[in-house]
Amino acid sequence: MDMSECVIGIDIGGTNTVVGIVDRTGTILTTESMKTRGYATFDAYVEDLDILIARMIKEHPEHTIKGVGMGAPDANHYTGRIEHAANLEWKGIIDVVDKVKAAIKLPVSLTNDANAAALGEMLFGGARGMKNFVEFTLGTGIGTGIVIDGEMVYGHTSLGGEIGHTVLVPEGRDCGCGRRGCMETYISATGICRTAQEVLCNRMDDSELRAIAPKDLTSKKIYDAAEHGDKLALECFDITAKWLGQSIADTVAISSPEAIFLFGGLANAGEMLMKPFRKYFDHYCMEMFKGTVKIERSHLNESDAAILGAAALIWDELEKEA
Amino acid sequence: MDMSECVIGIDIGGTNTVVGIVDRTGTILTTESMKTRGYATFDAYVEDLDILIARMIKEHPEHTIKGVGMGAPDANHYTGRIEHAANLEWKGIIDVVDKVKAAIKLPVSLTNDANAAALGEMLFGGARGMKNFVEFTLGTGIGTGIVIDGEMVYGHTSLGGEIGHTVLVPEGRDCGCGRRGCMETYISATGICRTAQEVLCNRMDDSELRAIAPKDLTSKKIYDAAEHGDKLALECFDITAKWLGQSIADTVAISSPEAIFLFGGLANAGEMLMKPFRKYFDHYCMEMFKGTVKIERSHLNESDAAILGAAALIWDELEKEA
Repeated sequence: MDMSECVIGIDIGGTNTVVGIVDRTGTILTTESMKTRGYATFDAYVEDLDILIARMIKEHPEHTIKGVGMGAPDANHYTGRIEHAANLEWKGIIDVVDKVKAAIKLPVSLTNDANAAALGEMLFGGARGMKNFVEFTLGTGIGTGIVIDGEMVYGHTSLGGEIGHTVLVPEGRDCGCGRRGCMETYISATGICRTAQEVLCNRMDDSELRAIAPKDLTSKKIYDAAEHGDKLALECFDITAKWLGQSIADTVAISSPEAIFLFGGLANAGEMLMKPFRKYFDHYCMEMFKGTVKIERSHLNESDAAILGAAALIWDELEKEA
Repeated sequence: MDMSECVIGIDIGGTNTVVGIVDRTGTILTTESMKTRGYATFDAYVEDLDILIARMIKEHPEHTIKGVGMGAPDANHYTGRIEHAANLEWKGIIDVVDKVKAAIKLPVSLTNDANAAALGEMLFGGARGMKNFVEFTLGTGIGTGIVIDGEMVYGHTSLGGEIGHTVLVPEGRDCGCGRRGCMETYISATGICRTAQEVLCNRMDDSELRAIAPKDLTSKKIYDAAEHGDKLALECFDITAKWLGQSIADTVAISSPEAIFLFGGLANAGEMLMKPFRKYFDHYCMEMFKGTVKIERSHLNESDAAILGAAALIWDELEKEA
């Protein structure tokens, strides 16, 4: 391994863009950030991004930059475009890879943030050496990255891997995708808040959650209440763990992974979620898959994961080409 | 393509074993069958199988046999074993590939019947030239074969691809796998019979299905009643099509296939199922996947599919090694 070789990982978020230089072991040498918002056109944004990257490269003359990996919402890996992103200012279809490659003159690759997280886990986290695993990002929604036989599942359109938008409850809760009962409306940082509304409606027990307006409720507040022993907050985690147990048992039946990694806001609840989860998973898992799969929190540090994932994307490609 | 080269496809069923010689275009030159049952040991069975195959090869001296592909229930592709098959007499773990290879002295490969059906579709059926598709066998249960990027999804254990045992209805119908609410308890030849019981209980309309004892009911009888315009039989197909629409929308969200092929008893209902299915699929499919996936009946002839699938397995391997 040539330790002077590095790549650049770029995480395009709705508000900020973070750029890091990352070596092959997953060490982040430096990061810088710039605004994502406020650029009238994507071309203007790329101009500033190019200046930022040129400066970072100049400040690290001891490293050779081999390529650029990018993670963004609604990114299409096959076309290298961001398509109709809900949380970005640039509307329509943006030729991200072509434009960044023209400016920076290095190999560039793009994928969506959930796939990037899975690739980060594969190269630098708990999935090192694994060929088959699934990464669930349990944040505002659910993102999933499925790796089969060492390859990310993109499918025919590049848009595969949307386990979060499979139906958990037929005709259940309204989902942002326009359908009903999707897994992410139950098992995510916002899903557990919706579950709290249901529990508060069904039960008559006192709860500190009754003092919080629905729009102010967060998964962290439910966690804090559960830590205080609040019965209904604990029930929210139990219900969420039950749904998660069923969903992960289904994922195991479909793809038979060696491990499943949980990442993101809701996964930070740790044992509050995982303890009841293990009981339910054991109940829902098909007999033939029992004992075949590890289920763990992501080994990646939350603040580094997006950069590491974007860097992993380009490292993975450079190595497959080599 | 050297047309003198052929392979042998073997379908190990619960009652009979069928053996065929198949060329690279999927033409079955000849088939023979023998009993699967009645052999005290697997060794005794292999002895007779070897005699049968030697005779078949001798009768076709103009063809060179390159290998043997086998499809069987509960087969593990990685280990080459049949493991605790519910419908075979040999209990425990059977070293199928090792024993057949020792007798026949050709390359031998084994997979389960649902995966074989998908491979048959890929080499000889509707999935020719496709890299990403899913084959559903809607028979007594549901078998599924998932192909991603040209490769069958076996997962870490080789037992992946069990979409039929993902939960369609939380805490729903009892399933033979020991769990509840699995897709195959709703969308299969037996699932639609269970749906008929539910419909007969919920509705008060006359129906010719009311004259059939539950143990005598078959999906074919429900189909015939629906053909006669029986209102409740038609409702059974509508309900099944709705569940199928939701399930296939979920499969599309996960793996984004180019096509989905339906095979087996229930798929034979044709437009009776497909017409309402298309309406429900359109309702349940995520916006971004609309128009990206073809959903069709298998292009394989039902009586040939098992042999073609087993033959496709070994053709696929021989070509990847070449």
